[in-house]
Amino acid sequence: MQTAEHVDMYARNDRYLYGCTSPAVLILRHNSKDMPQESASASTSSPRYVQIGQGLAQLIEGKAFRSGQRLPSVRELAQLHGVSLSTAVQALRWLEERHLVTAKPKSGYFVAPRLRPLALPETSQPPLQSFKVRRPSRNDALALSADNPHQISFGGTCPKDAKLFDESRVRTALSRATRQNRFSLVEYNTDELGVLALRQAIAQRSLHLGCHFIANQLVITNSCSQSFSLCLQAVTQPGDVVALESPTYFGFLDLIETLGLRALEIPTHPRHGLSLPALQLALDTQPVKAVLAVPTLSNPLGAVMPHAAKQQLVRMLAQRRIPLIEDLVFNDLLASDERRKAAKSFDQEGWVLACGSYSKTVTPGIRLGWVQGGRWHDRIVHLKHVHGITTPQVVELALADLLTQVGYESRLRRLSETLRLLLAHARRLVGQHFPKGTRVSAPPTGYTLWVELPEGINSQDLFERCRTEGIVFGPGQLFSATDRFRHCLRLSFSQAWTHEVREALVRVGELAHTD
Amino acid sequence: MQTAEHVDMYARNDRYLYGCTSPAVLILRHNSKDMPQESASASTSSPRYVQIGQGLAQLIEGKAFRSGQRLPSVRELAQLHGVSLSTAVQALRWLEERHLVTAKPKSGYFVAPRLRPLALPETSQPPLQSFKVRRPSRNDALALSADNPHQISFGGTCPKDAKLFDESRVRTALSRATRQNRFSLVEYNTDELGVLALRQAIAQRSLHLGCHFIANQLVITNSCSQSFSLCLQAVTQPGDVVALESPTYFGFLDLIETLGLRALEIPTHPRHGLSLPALQLALDTQPVKAVLAVPTLSNPLGAVMPHAAKQQLVRMLAQRRIPLIEDLVFNDLLASDERRKAAKSFDQEGWVLACGSYSKTVTPGIRLGWVQGGRWHDRIVHLKHVHGITTPQVVELALADLLTQVGYESRLRRLSETLRLLLAHARRLVGQHFPKGTRVSAPPTGYTLWVELPEGINSQDLFERCRTEGIVFGPGQLFSATDRFRHCLRLSFSQAWTHEVREALVRVGELAHTD
Repeated sequence: MQTAEHVDMYARNDRYLYGCTSPAVLILRHNSKDMPQESASASTSSPRYVQIGQGLAQLIEGKAFRSGQRLPSVRELAQLHGVSLSTAVQALRWLEERHLVTAKPKSGYFVAPRLRPLALPETSQPPLQSFKVRRPSRNDALALSADNPHQISFGGTCPKDAKLFDESRVRTALSRATRQNRFSLVEYNTDELGVLALRQAIAQRSLHLGCHFIANQLVITNSCSQSFSLCLQAVTQPGDVVALESPTYFGFLDLIETLGLRALEIPTHPRHGLSLPALQLALDTQPVKAVLAVPTLSNPLGAVMPHAAKQQLVRMLAQRRIPLIEDLVFNDLLASDERRKAAKSFDQEGWVLACGSYSKTVTPGIRLGWVQGGRWHDRIVHLKHVHGITTPQVVELALADLLTQVGYESRLRRLSETLRLLLAHARRLVGQHFPKGTRVSAPPTGYTLWVELPEGINSQDLFERCRTEGIVFGPGQLFSATDRFRHCLRLSFSQAWTHEVREALVRVGELAHTD
Repeated sequence: MQTAEHVDMYARNDRYLYGCTSPAVLILRHNSKDMPQESASASTSSPRYVQIGQGLAQLIEGKAFRSGQRLPSVRELAQLHGVSLSTAVQALRWLEERHLVTAKPKSGYFVAPRLRPLALPETSQPPLQSFKVRRPSRNDALALSADNPHQISFGGTCPKDAKLFDESRVRTALSRATRQNRFSLVEYNTDELGVLALRQAIAQRSLHLGCHFIANQLVITNSCSQSFSLCLQAVTQPGDVVALESPTYFGFLDLIETLGLRALEIPTHPRHGLSLPALQLALDTQPVKAVLAVPTLSNPLGAVMPHAAKQQLVRMLAQRRIPLIEDLVFNDLLASDERRKAAKSFDQEGWVLACGSYSKTVTPGIRLGWVQGGRWHDRIVHLKHVHGITTPQVVELALADLLTQVGYESRLRRLSETLRLLLAHARRLVGQHFPKGTRVSAPPTGYTLWVELPEGINSQDLFERCRTEGIVFGPGQLFSATDRFRHCLRLSFSQAWTHEVREALVRVGELAHTD
């Protein structure tokens, strides 16, 4: 059916294309009738740009376009398909997200070089058993990375590239907040939840997550880490078992250790996140008291759970009256609200505690987080008060200002795209320079790649070798309570991308070979 | 000996006093020869202003001056004793601290009205037994007080009187920090300890506490409450016993509850603080893992441990390898470095974890604290990172600026004096209007009075009655893990003193009578 449509469309557009037919357009027209049926039928209900993207993808994969060849321009593509320019751009971006084409500024889109196939890591297979966490001392890898500003760090996800954010805008917002008269700088923040303006701004932005928060359900914290800490303290007792993704964010493991909890890691797919059958088995056999997860752009894998899986996760936990602590810190990095949707948006009864912050999206210089604590709201307010009383009003007001400015959403999209291109580029370099058999995650955007080296290569040894050359990254064992990830590493791309950073990444790959 | 000196001095000064002899001066000269020997000999080594103050005190107590009578002016007193004007002022303030005289702006010093003797509370007698803390829910008294800005609150110690602090100065410091170029607003605070400028400023100010901190031993936190939280987490495990003053700050009990610890309250004198023999007995018989105390201006009693006791406390705990978490938040409210001296200043081996903040002295609007964690420094840095990563740089820089400004010390003295006078005034009102048999603490300065009503009056009932009239305070049972303080209350004077506040205080006393 779609093929017929395509034929029609190409016929319809033929008359407009006389005299402007590039080789790419000719290829497209030539091939339009041969589009395989199965793909076409699978995507009948997809948006228009996806249909166009899929058509081009099949041509690229079928080698109708050669590697490095220029694709039709946006204008040509729009005319060919009878769609708007923005739909054509979306189609090209769809291809770019899949690493099939690359954009060159001012030149257009080109078929990405054909690489040896770069496999995804397989779904992790942690043991069905909880562990008391014993972390390496704070002399660990990532702490070291902070000490030396001259080294090249693929270590932390704290963005260090000032160009990603708009410093003067942040400065102006802080100045404005300082000058404001509607609050007193010589009084405690009397609102124990945090200033209303900021809670309102966050409530407003929750629509982009598919949620409808109200300001009085939100608690401002000093950081998202504090949000996790308060949530874990609210829903667990020392000794309790907490289920996590595998691999998981090492900060979660640090919290679990310091709070005297036990970690139970759940098999996780590098693209689709937590395995729900595995989680169900864990809930059936282990005394799980809470789940702490990043359903959207997980850390370190960058997996995004499909909506249906998020919904099922929430339902599964609510039935068992088990709280889900959801980390929403990366959601806004996805370009569309459709993809940002939080598990929290499916929460009917308050079993999900949603935690967020803006240090990855507005600016890392503002240290504030938030919690929507569901049925634990009162407990979280109490714990916030006990462990620190209040948050700084002036910073809260500045953040409220930044979140509600016109253009915030388009700045988010630019940031998201910058990171997406950077990760795609880095992923290609890993494919070219790391040992044969290396697997790499393929997140749609974000700050991190998860690399599985061939078994037998010890990433802690690699870490030591790299460190003598002034390069650091996150060794795999940081991301688990077990040592299953000895051959893995997390690469974070949070500093500005330079020739030196590129060379450092290549060097990590070279050093991995000599193992 | 001193008497002879006095006689000499009066004789020496006689020639300057012709024609300017007020009745008070005549009384002084008349009585100077009758000064009792014992007091004189006791105070031989006291500073000059204390000697002068003691002389006047004896005259007042011996009724040589009648109640309400004007004292010699500062100039007269200086001439009489052959001392500087500032020494004369110090002598008068010494009397004022002891509530023997009152200052009336632009009129001078007057003998305070003779009240029925207002006794101090007795040393508390908690059981020699640790308790699991079960706090009332956060609907408790003090939380309620925050909800309604129209009620008169003697509830919290968060200063709410903007006149106590210099708002424009704070605003300027924040603006300046925002404009500074030496840090980036779009980067994480890369210094995990907190910005160096602030740690240097705090290290410099530690000299006023008798300490010699260096910047790298200090960790900046989001608040002093966070400092206590980090210290308790660093030195205890759930189930451990922590020794506290009795009565103690309810925030400590909240922390102990949320961290799953047990509270052991130690007898405490309303003027001299922790009873060391009682503490020794507790250490000998109970598995105490840490002591959490406010040796200088304790909360709620306002007790100040003598230097020798502080020293002995530190020695006693170091011998047993038990950490002391010392709250230094009120020290700077005392006017002289001599009186501010921290227990930490006697710490040779790092067994004292010193915690402070400036929300009671610089401005409550800046939410930052600090810890000098002694031998637990590394652990505290790690815990800070795990539970919140970093603190806000811009606020840190503003605070560093405020702490190092010329005139900070003199602003501190003014604040201290304002609070001292306010407490003295409030204490007199309690003496006049509360039921016979009421005992009241007599702190040298600070924000709080501890009131012991006659046994049988339930302060929680009183609280409920007052609340219906829009007045709140801290009911006694908040300040203990037991219910020993049912007949007590803490009155905080943190809002601006107005006619309404005065009337509200009188009203609390009236309602206490009807019980």
